[in-house]
Amino acid sequence: MAPKYAPSLRSCLAPLLLFLQTGFIVIYAYLTIIKAYYFSLAEFMDVNVMVILGFGFLCTFPVRYGFSGSGFNLLVAAIATQWAIILNNIESLYYRRKIRLDMESLVVAELCTASALVSIGAMLGKTNPVQLILISLLEVSGFILNKWLLQSFLKLQLVNSIMMLHIFGALFGLMLTWIVCWKGSEEPFEKERSDRKSGLFSMLGAVFLWMFWPSFISVLVHDSPERKLWVVCSTYLALAVSAVVAVVVSVLSSPKGKLNLIHMQSCIFAGGVAVGVSISVVHQPWEAMTIGFVAAIVSAIGFRYLKSHMLLAFHCHDTCAILSTHGLPGLLGWLAHLLLQIKDYDDPTMAIRFAVFHICTLLITITLSLSMGITTGRLSLCQGFHYQQPCTIIKVDNVVFTFSTLDKHWCILSLFYMVAICTIVFPNGFFMSLFKGLLLKWNFWRPPQHNKCFDDQAFWEVGNQYYILPFTM
Amino acid sequence: MAPKYAPSLRSCLAPLLLFLQTGFIVIYAYLTIIKAYYFSLAEFMDVNVMVILGFGFLCTFPVRYGFSGSGFNLLVAAIATQWAIILNNIESLYYRRKIRLDMESLVVAELCTASALVSIGAMLGKTNPVQLILISLLEVSGFILNKWLLQSFLKLQLVNSIMMLHIFGALFGLMLTWIVCWKGSEEPFEKERSDRKSGLFSMLGAVFLWMFWPSFISVLVHDSPERKLWVVCSTYLALAVSAVVAVVVSVLSSPKGKLNLIHMQSCIFAGGVAVGVSISVVHQPWEAMTIGFVAAIVSAIGFRYLKSHMLLAFHCHDTCAILSTHGLPGLLGWLAHLLLQIKDYDDPTMAIRFAVFHICTLLITITLSLSMGITTGRLSLCQGFHYQQPCTIIKVDNVVFTFSTLDKHWCILSLFYMVAICTIVFPNGFFMSLFKGLLLKWNFWRPPQHNKCFDDQAFWEVGNQYYILPFTM
Amino acid sequence: MAPKYAPSLRSCLAPLLLFLQTGFIVIYAYLTIIKAYYFSLAEFMDVNVMVILGFGFLCTFPVRYGFSGSGFNLLVAAIATQWAIILNNIESLYYRRKIRLDMESLVVAELCTASALVSIGAMLGKTNPVQLILISLLEVSGFILNKWLLQSFLKLQLVNSIMMLHIFGALFGLMLTWIVCWKGSEEPFEKERSDRKSGLFSMLGAVFLWMFWPSFISVLVHDSPERKLWVVCSTYLALAVSAVVAVVVSVLSSPKGKLNLIHMQSCIFAGGVAVGVSISVVHQPWEAMTIGFVAAIVSAIGFRYLKSHMLLAFHCHDTCAILSTHGLPGLLGWLAHLLLQIKDYDDPTMAIRFAVFHICTLLITITLSLSMGITTGRLSLCQGFHYQQPCTIIKVDNVVFTFSTLDKHWCILSLFYMVAICTIVFPNGFFMSLFKGLLLKWNFWRPPQHNKCFDDQAFWEVGNQYYILPFTM
Repeated sequence: MAPKYAPSLRSCLAPLLLFLQTGFIVIYAYLTIIKAYYFSLAEFMDVNVMVILGFGFLCTFPVRYGFSGSGFNLLVAAIATQWAIILNNIESLYYRRKIRLDMESLVVAELCTASALVSIGAMLGKTNPVQLILISLLEVSGFILNKWLLQSFLKLQLVNSIMMLHIFGALFGLMLTWIVCWKGSEEPFEKERSDRKSGLFSMLGAVFLWMFWPSFISVLVHDSPERKLWVVCSTYLALAVSAVVAVVVSVLSSPKGKLNLIHMQSCIFAGGVAVGVSISVVHQPWEAMTIGFVAAIVSAIGFRYLKSHMLLAFHCHDTCAILSTHGLPGLLGWLAHLLLQIKDYDDPTMAIRFAVFHICTLLITITLSLSMGITTGRLSLCQGFHYQQPCTIIKVDNVVFTFSTLDKHWCILSLFYMVAICTIVFPNGFFMSLFKGLLLKWNFWRPPQHNKCFDDQAFWEVGNQYYILPFTM
Repeated sequence: MAPKYAPSLRSCLAPLLLFLQTGFIVIYAYLTIIKAYYFSLAEFMDVNVMVILGFGFLCTFPVRYGFSGSGFNLLVAAIATQWAIILNNIESLYYRRKIRLDMESLVVAELCTASALVSIGAMLGKTNPVQLILISLLEVSGFILNKWLLQSFLKLQLVNSIMMLHIFGALFGLMLTWIVCWKGSEEPFEKERSDRKSGLFSMLGAVFLWMFWPSFISVLVHDSPERKLWVVCSTYLALAVSAVVAVVVSVLSSPKGKLNLIHMQSCIFAGGVAVGVSISVVHQPWEAMTIGFVAAIVSAIGFRYLKSHMLLAFHCHDTCAILSTHGLPGLLGWLAHLLLQIKDYDDPTMAIRFAVFHICTLLITITLSLSMGITTGRLSLCQGFHYQQPCTIIKVDNVVFTFSTLDKHWCILSLFYMVAICTIVFPNGFFMSLFKGLLLKWNFWRPPQHNKCFDDQAFWEVGNQYYILPFTM
Repeated sequence: MAPKYAPSLRSCLAPLLLFLQTGFIVIYAYLTIIKAYYFSLAEFMDVNVMVILGFGFLCTFPVRYGFSGSGFNLLVAAIATQWAIILNNIESLYYRRKIRLDMESLVVAELCTASALVSIGAMLGKTNPVQLILISLLEVSGFILNKWLLQSFLKLQLVNSIMMLHIFGALFGLMLTWIVCWKGSEEPFEKERSDRKSGLFSMLGAVFLWMFWPSFISVLVHDSPERKLWVVCSTYLALAVSAVVAVVVSVLSSPKGKLNLIHMQSCIFAGGVAVGVSISVVHQPWEAMTIGFVAAIVSAIGFRYLKSHMLLAFHCHDTCAILSTHGLPGLLGWLAHLLLQIKDYDDPTMAIRFAVFHICTLLITITLSLSMGITTGRLSLCQGFHYQQPCTIIKVDNVVFTFSTLDKHWCILSLFYMVAICTIVFPNGFFMSLFKGLLLKWNFWRPPQHNKCFDDQAFWEVGNQYYILPFTM
């Protein structure tokens, strides 16, 4: 099984990565870089730890998917951050041919990457790395477009537009997994389970996310050092409340009255998500704590009931339950922002005005995330329809997949997106014709012949192997 | 076995946590919060990492108790920190109805939580989460009372009174495990053992404690930035010496002449404990190194011989060997403080005066920790005596427990403590009558019918489970 | 097997460590300590995390060697850092009897320790802890001598001379493993393999190294805060490129077209190594990215092909593949430094002058590392030759070792080095005669009778043991 699949991975993943990486270096070299002002090293490190270690090890819970969970996360983060730095500077690129590179642009890029990592959580175990890379690039592009719309037209602050990452990422990922894995997902994946040790590795990731979440939120709060520390305190309290309430709901909703470690891990930072979205109007710790309380309830109940409901009713298999982990708490935070802000206004006209603006913010985010998620998935599905018969619906140990032949069309689609961006950046038409020419002849994305979901063996050399003996080379 | 136990966990843990968490939010909302001055974010993060990750993963060494070790630690830390913030402000609450919430109060609260986590180490694997929550609340209350006594009557500095946490936590935990687990502990627990992977998870926690210990100690040193960094250097050297000497003693005291990872883990930060207690008088690195040297010897010998001796002679089963890990190095640090301070005085009168004060410090701490530990345990045992016949002494795979029926009395006892505190904070008598009324009718703490020590299965959904299939929901 | 070996460990390791540790405390006590200026706590913590956690857990990949990998790393780091602080102050010790102890001296000492940890990577699994301690002390001495030569004669900046640690450590370790493990290494070690969980522990270490590498490099850059943050950004980009390219090469070079986690781990920070060596001349991010690109290719190809080639052609078994992980990227960084610096010079005379200086830097480092590595290994081999027949070539499960009887001679050799240093520090001849006297009568380094490579059981109490039962004490 695995050897047959492997050449495809080699002929697909390696050229794609080489092409992207060389392209990025060329873009960085071609354009002047401007340096900017001071920003704390320690805060960047905290965000970096969350993105690389937290999200990475959170995804190691499937018992046979630990290598992919942590390894692909690092790969995606490395690629997506470079892409996000370029896209965040696209205006400056167009007018001045300059990229701003400093601590802040790095932190903002990592936060955009975090939204891609959220999306990927829904597809965990059901994709190959080629698809992961393309999804993450498209997701980051979409998220930055969304951020730019919110900042340009609705005059949102950076921190508020960035914090929509949870809503955007969750809805994007959900649509993607819905469209792409329509068939087969109603049956359980036989390898989607955790054991004692993989649960602990995942707990490690969750604990890192939990610990550094206050840094994650406060990193973009620049009003004053006092305000920043205040945000840290409030977030810490919201997280503490979340952790407690997640345990409560986990115990209450379990048929055996027991805790579930994966359930607990997914819900302990619900308060952090919700407080993050509403951070600019939270001024009392009890507000943060109440938001954390409700968010954890919503998230934990969603994890327990919504996930299986969506699987049965909509055939939407959401591996990491990102809807309840990021989506619902994000929406709750948005609502809390609305209510708390309206409460502060004396003038009802102002309050209504704000409410309209705030609802627009959400609508734009939802529309963009849903439409980009659906189009990305659906388009590939439509184009790929006539190819579907011979090789798409493959039965691997009673698990049916439909996504395996879509690589080709995804690549075309994603290159299409990239051409659009490149032609904005370099408006001389050269790149467009180059890519168009390439596009038409591109045929090296061989679809994976076989696949086993949630199994490292498709992509990694695993097992009790002697890792440097001559015969493995 | 497990299903029978579970409803009790559900009907016990969830209401208790909900009650506590709602109460905390009400307290935080009812009282005004005052913000205070600047404090470093990075140092708070370091302490947070130690409390959540360090103590949490240090407790994952029992091979079947990793989920509980890390999960319950997070739960206890989240609850106890909120409680400690309230208690630390009790004077200010009484007079001004204000809670101070800033980085420093958060750090101090986390340090108080650390003392509870030390105590809990002695009970690891032999308690259910309801008991852990109550123990930790009582322990934190006792520790803050102790801190307040030392600061008010003996005019100790904050850093010196906080650092008694090791002595207080160790003695409190020891008394508790002695009283509560009197019977049955002379026989070995069949699941109290570690394997290769659980040992490495535990090593991870130990390494984090070791790495961030200098931050842990320096965080409350405010004399000058120079002094702070000096403290970091000295502590680092003391820790390095401890690590080396712990290896030496581990090898020398092993009958097979081999190292023992759990032994090493427990003793590498003995120097940190001892230097922490005596930090305000350590002015030369060789002093810190010598303290680290002796502390590691005491701790490692204590771990190897004292633990089994106490088990055989006193029936006192101390899971994490907190007596030798925190108690003895703490006492040694106290002694070092005494000697170094006396050496500095020219005037013998002053020296004697200081010695009397310093001995009082220790006596108060010991008295309070022992008495609170003993009373907590003994009272419940006395009241519970006539209930004991039918259900207390249960044989589970040849392990005899006496604590299983004590939940009820513990809860009454702990609510009694809380009433005392609430009536101080809100002196209108309303709360007292409310709680008293509740107390008399409280009957929902069903004791666990069965139990298996050191087994996650009593509290967690474990095993090779498919964690989101319909039938698990 | 193991019990027979153990007494030797006890009679060897414990006295050695006790002797060293007491000696260090005496040196620190005898000499006045001068405190110096301010240095960031957070940066020290980052370096500490890399040295203790990163290097330690990176070495846990052999499935039965996790305890040794993490435990011995901590032990070596604790000893070597103390030694490095002393050696770094040897001039000041000689003239003024003072040691400078502050954050910077601690950070520099930890970086010197890192060079020893690099060397030890080549010997991982094939040594006992006594040998590890001695190797690390000698390596640190050699590296500091090299650093001193570069700084004194070639007027190199501190950061440039320190960053030669990768080249020095790799070549030293390579020579050592070549000389010492000549025989037997052509056959595979049966226990040198990883499994799913040990791979993840190792990934954890690699991820920590990757995340904190920017701190590791920027910590000694003092030009300006702006320059420091610029270094962090560039290094981050180089690391991101490395991670991507490491995946590419890993996939391309695998016969099955699959990724290899250990391969990926070893190569993701190749860019960090190379950029570190050339950091003082990297002024554009694309330069850093290109260096990272090439470094990752060199490192990943080296790991895949060079390691087995060296094993077959030179009988040089390099466990962690330090040649390709640290050696080749270090050399590449040196080359990049040369090219970038020359490019900047307008005046060809200056450029040639710089090139000569720069080549001298490399030649000194290579000469010193090779000669010290070879002499250390060869000398012991020569002296030990006539002892070799009866006990050296032992067959343990078809694995042949030659190093097992060399302890004695190594100890003599290392004490010889130490005498040299102590007589410089304390030039009264007392120490020299003391040590000389000791040397001649020293006979307690019993060689290990049996050994199993890559097995914790030789040194640790492992297995499903009940770790505090009476019979284990």
